[in-house]
Amino acid sequence: MQERTLGELAEYVGGRIVGNPDTIIKSASTLGRAGNGDISFLTNRKYKRQLRITKASAVIVGKEGTADTSVPLLIAEDPYYAFMQIMVLLHGHRKHKKVGISPRTSISDSAKIGADCQIHDFVTISDNAKVGDGCVIYPCVYVGSGVQIGNDSIIYPNVTIYDGCKIANRVIINANTTIGEDGFGYASHKGVHHKIPQIGTVIIEDDVEIGTCCAIERGTLSDTIISQGSKIGDLVTIGHGTKIGPHCLLVAQVGVAGSTSLGHHCIVGGQVGIVGHINIGNNVTIAAQAGVINNIPDGKVVLGAPAIEAGQGKRAYGMIQYLPEMRHNIRKLENLLERIAPSVESEAEKSDEQQL
Amino acid sequence: MQERTLGELAEYVGGRIVGNPDTIIKSASTLGRAGNGDISFLTNRKYKRQLRITKASAVIVGKEGTADTSVPLLIAEDPYYAFMQIMVLLHGHRKHKKVGISPRTSISDSAKIGADCQIHDFVTISDNAKVGDGCVIYPCVYVGSGVQIGNDSIIYPNVTIYDGCKIANRVIINANTTIGEDGFGYASHKGVHHKIPQIGTVIIEDDVEIGTCCAIERGTLSDTIISQGSKIGDLVTIGHGTKIGPHCLLVAQVGVAGSTSLGHHCIVGGQVGIVGHINIGNNVTIAAQAGVINNIPDGKVVLGAPAIEAGQGKRAYGMIQYLPEMRHNIRKLENLLERIAPSVESEAEKSDEQQL
Amino acid sequence: MQERTLGELAEYVGGRIVGNPDTIIKSASTLGRAGNGDISFLTNRKYKRQLRITKASAVIVGKEGTADTSVPLLIAEDPYYAFMQIMVLLHGHRKHKKVGISPRTSISDSAKIGADCQIHDFVTISDNAKVGDGCVIYPCVYVGSGVQIGNDSIIYPNVTIYDGCKIANRVIINANTTIGEDGFGYASHKGVHHKIPQIGTVIIEDDVEIGTCCAIERGTLSDTIISQGSKIGDLVTIGHGTKIGPHCLLVAQVGVAGSTSLGHHCIVGGQVGIVGHINIGNNVTIAAQAGVINNIPDGKVVLGAPAIEAGQGKRAYGMIQYLPEMRHNIRKLENLLERIAPSVESEAEKSDEQQL
Repeated sequence: MQERTLGELAEYVGGRIVGNPDTIIKSASTLGRAGNGDISFLTNRKYKRQLRITKASAVIVGKEGTADTSVPLLIAEDPYYAFMQIMVLLHGHRKHKKVGISPRTSISDSAKIGADCQIHDFVTISDNAKVGDGCVIYPCVYVGSGVQIGNDSIIYPNVTIYDGCKIANRVIINANTTIGEDGFGYASHKGVHHKIPQIGTVIIEDDVEIGTCCAIERGTLSDTIISQGSKIGDLVTIGHGTKIGPHCLLVAQVGVAGSTSLGHHCIVGGQVGIVGHINIGNNVTIAAQAGVINNIPDGKVVLGAPAIEAGQGKRAYGMIQYLPEMRHNIRKLENLLERIAPSVESEAEKSDEQQL
Repeated sequence: MQERTLGELAEYVGGRIVGNPDTIIKSASTLGRAGNGDISFLTNRKYKRQLRITKASAVIVGKEGTADTSVPLLIAEDPYYAFMQIMVLLHGHRKHKKVGISPRTSISDSAKIGADCQIHDFVTISDNAKVGDGCVIYPCVYVGSGVQIGNDSIIYPNVTIYDGCKIANRVIINANTTIGEDGFGYASHKGVHHKIPQIGTVIIEDDVEIGTCCAIERGTLSDTIISQGSKIGDLVTIGHGTKIGPHCLLVAQVGVAGSTSLGHHCIVGGQVGIVGHINIGNNVTIAAQAGVINNIPDGKVVLGAPAIEAGQGKRAYGMIQYLPEMRHNIRKLENLLERIAPSVESEAEKSDEQQL
Repeated sequence: MQERTLGELAEYVGGRIVGNPDTIIKSASTLGRAGNGDISFLTNRKYKRQLRITKASAVIVGKEGTADTSVPLLIAEDPYYAFMQIMVLLHGHRKHKKVGISPRTSISDSAKIGADCQIHDFVTISDNAKVGDGCVIYPCVYVGSGVQIGNDSIIYPNVTIYDGCKIANRVIINANTTIGEDGFGYASHKGVHHKIPQIGTVIIEDDVEIGTCCAIERGTLSDTIISQGSKIGDLVTIGHGTKIGPHCLLVAQVGVAGSTSLGHHCIVGGQVGIVGHINIGNNVTIAAQAGVINNIPDGKVVLGAPAIEAGQGKRAYGMIQYLPEMRHNIRKLENLLERIAPSVESEAEKSDEQQL
């Protein structure tokens, strides 16, 4: 933990200060919990009124600034990004103990381990697997035969990586996740489901992070790909042969079926389901719990199950609650019309039937 | 397994008997499968007709009793609670083998282990971790540095607990669950997602049970808290900085996003999704698969996605099936009106347009 | 990898050829990626136009054949089944290294291990457990006391099998899955949830495959059963005492609550939720994300939440997007009627109120 002045932080993130630049900052905290020495941040308007009562020594705000507080402010173009920079500066990322290569591992003679790796107890590294430099592999991780891991990747405890998968550089895979199990592929014939060999693998590109308890299936014929810079939450499953483009965000409990592709910079909310064999464009946003069954062009925002364009969808799904009232009103109109125009209606009905 | 008379059981649970108190009871079973020596129970009306044909030696029923059977009855105020008490009396909870502290573990010299612990093979306990008295830690569990575990807690195989998390007393964590992985927090800047250090931890209070394959994220700045007595099903994820109040029940596959709080005694059905940064009150019930996007006051029952009050919601969501009929009827009304009042309608439309 | 002629493959699968039977086939690939020596297949019409540009050496098609390509064709009655047969012939299923019984395991003296088993490092096999012949048990698997595993079953890394569960022959359990954790059963009494001992187990019959990160709960009183030939995807949970019939397919992220039964040959789409204590018949198909709250008779296809018959459901759920328009049109009709028949309406409303 590093101690800094507010002035140093402002210079570091390229922001400007309202208040005393010599204010000492030791750590970061929320507006509600911050005390002396803490810097906090405001990016969600919901918390704006906390500005008046926060005990933080300073608060990071957006360039529009704020007059709602007497607390020193650090005004940044992108306050959440500045907050991230300051978090890294003050607290850093998780430190990994230098354990070297434990003798209590099970490492094949044909496996290759790079320099400066930390391989913990009870790790298995199978035949012909390659681990690059600077990797950290926590206890009880299983690295299958022929798996390739690049440099500076971190594999947390109890992760399983099936044979032949490729993990690139600076990848983080969180605990209890499985990479490369067989895709859910069976040929059903005369009532029996026959397993189809899944000869594709999984490719995870640079700077990807994958949450805990995820399931990334290997492809049937082609590879399943998680492209560069994408971040995947907990309990997510990606089907066989699916491609997640670069710099996507997939929140927890998302399921993407097989042979689907997502473009770059897509944001997929929690518990979303996406069917197989469709194409999602670039910069697509899919709201939580949506069910996506059709292609989505670039830049669209969708929600609901079935998923539709968000503006329309917000109104439409929000209107389900009025269905009883609507049905009642339709009946009232029908009754009314029957009373004021019984003869006309019966005639109209006749002609209606003829049209069917 | 203990053998008891029905009279002894009735005294134990504070119930009364209809039938022979000397009936011998050896174990518990369902109405459909029970045989001689088995006690069964009826709390779900669905199974009431099974009372007439059950071969159980006795049946626990509610205080309203029943005339539908000749089987001896144990009448209890809260029959499901009486059933639980009798299950514990006759069968007990899982027994854990006394293995002591296996030499085939990886326990840091700076870790502290209390008295009467069972630490199985292939367990890792990292630097400065503390484990209280009477804990059972099954194979391949990972306990990160600085983790604190209270007394009499049970950690099943392949659980991962990240650094710094606090697990209290009599906590049960089921297999393959992860506690304290980094929250899903990134600052997106110029198309790249930058990881934000997550400096909070996870606090799990007394008497909590957590299912298998769960993911409880650590907080970004504050802690994620699962309060006393709450029970969490399988494949549940709790987001960073979220607080689950005391004595809640979260059924399988629930997802709660970050910085949300639930009060006490909430019941959350399977596959429910709850967004971040909202407040759910006390004694709130959320039906399975609901999507909760707004605060919910104390005592409410909600359902649906988006979630609405249950009474209204049951009718509204149940009415979606009539949408084709409703739309057809609206068109019929429009056609009819056009025929009986074409001139009026066109005038009305004009005035309608002027109002827009 | 085996090299074959197209003629040999046609004979093997019982198909006929259009084109040169001496075409050499070395492996299988997708239409889009296939090159010289590859056989591909067409079963999804979506990809039909790829037939004209594929560089595959041959393509498996259905008996209706196709005139859209000059590529040699293998015409099969059930082309996906033929594709599976050829995949197995050319590539085979995963080969498991012969490691014997590693000395770095933890196997109880009272456990019995059959012939030709491969038991990897860091595996635990507890008291009185039995493992049949030809099983493969990967690193860090936990086999609880009294567990029985049949012949030729494969248990991938980090799987946990709680005490007393029964796994039959040729079963595949993928990594990080848990079998037999306690069912989610508590008796709530005066605001406290009391754990009910779960004395049932889990029975997994022959030829079942279970995905990764699944949670199969043990029964409270009776057993949880996954019947013969059923295949279960990733991140699926099956509640206590539930029975999945033979030859079912449960896609990823399905949740089935306790004491429910599914018949044979059911297909359950991704993210489906099924409540407890209901009966699903045989040959039932449930579309992805459906919420099933009532019994379903044999042969039905359902979708939606709440789930309704598919034909009706497809139209009904697809019509949610028109709700704003429908509501607008109802209001227009009301306004119109008010103008053309104000006196009648007010009278009608009166009589309407009297009816309530």
